[in-house]
Amino acid sequence: MTTAKKTGRTFLFRIPPKADLCEALEKFLARKKIRLGTVSAIGALSQATIGYYDQEKRKYFKKTIKGELEIVACIGNVSLKDGKPFPHLHAALSDTKMRLLGGHLFPGSTVFVAEVQVQEIKGKPYARRLDSATGLPLWPIR
Amino acid sequence: MTTAKKTGRTFLFRIPPKADLCEALEKFLARKKIRLGTVSAIGALSQATIGYYDQEKRKYFKKTIKGELEIVACIGNVSLKDGKPFPHLHAALSDTKMRLLGGHLFPGSTVFVAEVQVQEIKGKPYARRLDSATGLPLWPIR
Amino acid sequence: MTTAKKTGRTFLFRIPPKADLCEALEKFLARKKIRLGTVSAIGALSQATIGYYDQEKRKYFKKTIKGELEIVACIGNVSLKDGKPFPHLHAALSDTKMRLLGGHLFPGSTVFVAEVQVQEIKGKPYARRLDSATGLPLWPIR
Repeated sequence: MTTAKKTGRTFLFRIPPKADLCEALEKFLARKKIRLGTVSAIGALSQATIGYYDQEKRKYFKKTIKGELEIVACIGNVSLKDGKPFPHLHAALSDTKMRLLGGHLFPGSTVFVAEVQVQEIKGKPYARRLDSATGLPLWPIR
Repeated sequence: MTTAKKTGRTFLFRIPPKADLCEALEKFLARKKIRLGTVSAIGALSQATIGYYDQEKRKYFKKTIKGELEIVACIGNVSLKDGKPFPHLHAALSDTKMRLLGGHLFPGSTVFVAEVQVQEIKGKPYARRLDSATGLPLWPIR
Repeated sequence: MTTAKKTGRTFLFRIPPKADLCEALEKFLARKKIRLGTVSAIGALSQATIGYYDQEKRKYFKKTIKGELEIVACIGNVSLKDGKPFPHLHAALSDTKMRLLGGHLFPGSTVFVAEVQVQEIKGKPYARRLDSATGLPLWPIR
């Protein structure tokens, strides 16, 4: 995975209000057959489901927050999980006091406005597989 | 807007101390005729004007913070607004206790150091127009 | 530095658990001879060393935090410092309450999982030199 690659297609688009950010992006990736790449997004959510991974207990802790949240910085990547394009996204969100919260972004995050860039990377896609050292679905290290 | 595009020119540059980050970037985009693209920046500010969009009242609430702030992650995009290249930027900033605050970044944000990347995207530019569903100047969805 | 450039090679890879994020990335850049570019990463750390630059005293204040931290958004760039490829990274991290903290990312940051993209930019590399106005090693402005 440390071999040099080239960038492919670029997409800059808006996900409509009320869509689930993760699910809408996943559908977009499947439709466009984007199997490897990077993602970034800004905008606002009306609900967010974020989590952190407990490195000892090896499970995600999630919480769902309703309310007005700016997507201050959402970045991530695209690879295959269970044979399908999967967006792995982390997001920094701001509340109405402009304080930041965030973590891993899960389905259950509702778009108010989302301006998203997807940058395809050409070449053999990566497949996530359960990694015994961390308990997470990860790319192999070679 | 979901048609595949290609990346164009890349710029990696520094905005000088005391400049207004948004205004300096807007001038740069106009001078280079960059009408569609993405932006990312890190550095530090001596003053920031950030805001969030009240999704019910349909207006931005802003505040200006003076003091030492790291630009932890500033990301955004470029499109046309009122016929001119417009950078839509969100920023995560840290205070001297290393706690994060942020939101939409407005003019009134003064550079101490700013290292900026602008990635042009080729093709027909997008124009922001008032969207009746949100009250915001948005790209059309097609 | 405001002349148009082109993107070069792209790398999307994982840094193994227990590695020092900054040092592992620095070695990667040296091995691949990447002298100019941008970086983004998500994942999780088991320890982080972050700091902010005191703009008056002209020195970094650092702190090291042990514990579970998501890398919510780590972005930065690559240029030459002391003749070697140097990653300048800022990071937004979340604690187990999903509150965000962050700043400049220093060596002393231990990977639990790190998924990293490096985008090379072609052309003449930039060299950081001590800037008398800020006290920081910066790119020249031309």
